[in-house]
Amino acid sequence: MKIVIALGGNALGSTPGEQIKNAKITAKNILPIIKEHNCIITHGNGPQVGLINLAFDEGKKVNDKVYEMPFAECGAMSEGYIGFHLVNAIKNELKIEGIKKDVISVLTNVLVDKNDEAFDNPTKPIGSFYTEEEAKKSPFVMKEDANRGYRRVVASPKPLKIIEEDAIIKLSDNGFIVVACGGGGIPIYEENNKYIPVDAVIDKDYASSKLASDIKADMLLILTAVKNAKINFGKTDEKDLGIITKEEAKNYLANNEFKAGSMKPKIVSLIDFIEQNEKGTGIITDIFNAYDAINLKCGTIIKN
Amino acid sequence: MKIVIALGGNALGSTPGEQIKNAKITAKNILPIIKEHNCIITHGNGPQVGLINLAFDEGKKVNDKVYEMPFAECGAMSEGYIGFHLVNAIKNELKIEGIKKDVISVLTNVLVDKNDEAFDNPTKPIGSFYTEEEAKKSPFVMKEDANRGYRRVVASPKPLKIIEEDAIIKLSDNGFIVVACGGGGIPIYEENNKYIPVDAVIDKDYASSKLASDIKADMLLILTAVKNAKINFGKTDEKDLGIITKEEAKNYLANNEFKAGSMKPKIVSLIDFIEQNEKGTGIITDIFNAYDAINLKCGTIIKN
Repeated sequence: MKIVIALGGNALGSTPGEQIKNAKITAKNILPIIKEHNCIITHGNGPQVGLINLAFDEGKKVNDKVYEMPFAECGAMSEGYIGFHLVNAIKNELKIEGIKKDVISVLTNVLVDKNDEAFDNPTKPIGSFYTEEEAKKSPFVMKEDANRGYRRVVASPKPLKIIEEDAIIKLSDNGFIVVACGGGGIPIYEENNKYIPVDAVIDKDYASSKLASDIKADMLLILTAVKNAKINFGKTDEKDLGIITKEEAKNYLANNEFKAGSMKPKIVSLIDFIEQNEKGTGIITDIFNAYDAINLKCGTIIKN
Repeated sequence: MKIVIALGGNALGSTPGEQIKNAKITAKNILPIIKEHNCIITHGNGPQVGLINLAFDEGKKVNDKVYEMPFAECGAMSEGYIGFHLVNAIKNELKIEGIKKDVISVLTNVLVDKNDEAFDNPTKPIGSFYTEEEAKKSPFVMKEDANRGYRRVVASPKPLKIIEEDAIIKLSDNGFIVVACGGGGIPIYEENNKYIPVDAVIDKDYASSKLASDIKADMLLILTAVKNAKINFGKTDEKDLGIITKEEAKNYLANNEFKAGSMKPKIVSLIDFIEQNEKGTGIITDIFNAYDAINLKCGTIIKN
């Protein structure tokens, strides 16, 4: 099977040391899938791009040789940083098992619409905290963050096209394990026949769904902190979701069963993928149950 | 022809804005080559990895949420950062001319020997300046830098293998313009059947030469700040080098005609390439003369 595996923040880490440790655990757990299938691995970059942005924000306060770093560039750096840890963690697990497969990380740009309504109301907080006074002087959109001060917010537009799709397909078809769409991809828009970077964050589940649809993957596996998506979340009749149809998933979604910014975008991503790819299977589970889940033995599984 | 184009620091920039500007100029100037040939583009990362390292160094002085970032990880970030600007600059030039070629940046690890003698005497200064007192407390090797204070120094080991070589070949053979070996590649060594990152800098000309040899390129084109390498540099009988043989180049090298850390590694890289690839051509020139140089009309050209 051709499987897109989307790794959440918990599969990586906030510090470099933590990330090396977590990337190893992740690699060990997805190895059985990688051995048997054709995999493309995508990942988030929330804590990592935040850290990079923070380093530049804080660094330039004390040293004028640290320059303002645009957010798209911080995203590009996070693709290098995370890709490096993921690729080497997977390579090392493959070496231990003597498996002759190769892993490659591809810098990924993702096309967005400059007029995406998300740009009218940026919501994703990034980087350091500022005082009200500093925030007022800032050239960026700043929002108050739960009494901890003001933070810059950027938009989260929809992914329209994975720019490096052809290369990803070519590498995957040639047997490479491909790491791509890091952090949802670096957002760029097109204007006057030119690509222009934009300070924004693309949801990595949406980008993974777009990629999985476009490359006609058999499966989109979203790995997160929990084994199953739940309905009646936090209530006495809370219930794990197992194998459900796309229509059932849509109904739960309509009933607001899933939390925005958390389980909701994952369910939406799986539904979108199956709508584009009738025979596709969408799965949500944690890294420890990933192999069983792709064999339909556990996790939340959405099919037509 | 299959051409490896190695871009020097002057083809990029110290600040993000400068780099976008320079990447555009570079892309415009190498476009005629890209149109006609199969190109793999490598690049340095001196100012960029220095900037990233500095941001983390300085940032963590004022905010404990900025973590210590190992140098190999800073290198990985620089590949993302520079790759992003280069890829998009080239894509935009291709779009202007309506050329249907695709560009892709591949995160590149390069194998080094843990016992490379370079590790006994680190020489490459990186990151911020420290006082003598701070330097003494540092866990890193620190050296005094011309009365400006102390700086961390890292080793510059020789590249033994371009880890992602197979993917680079596959993409190039499929018509992609590939950006690879950024900053000479991220240095890793192998121990107990595992890849381990190491804080070091690989000379980008040496890495480019290794890549060009291994993929059996027809040409290695090293672009730098000057149109020609010179002999009797700075003297009254200073002379541009045009088309010379490998043996002539070796003789000039033996006579110490080329400056260490500047022209010398470039000449060594070209000689190494031609020794591995008898029919290969090695060229040094600036970006503005790149197209004429590959057509053997100018620049310093070394052949067997």
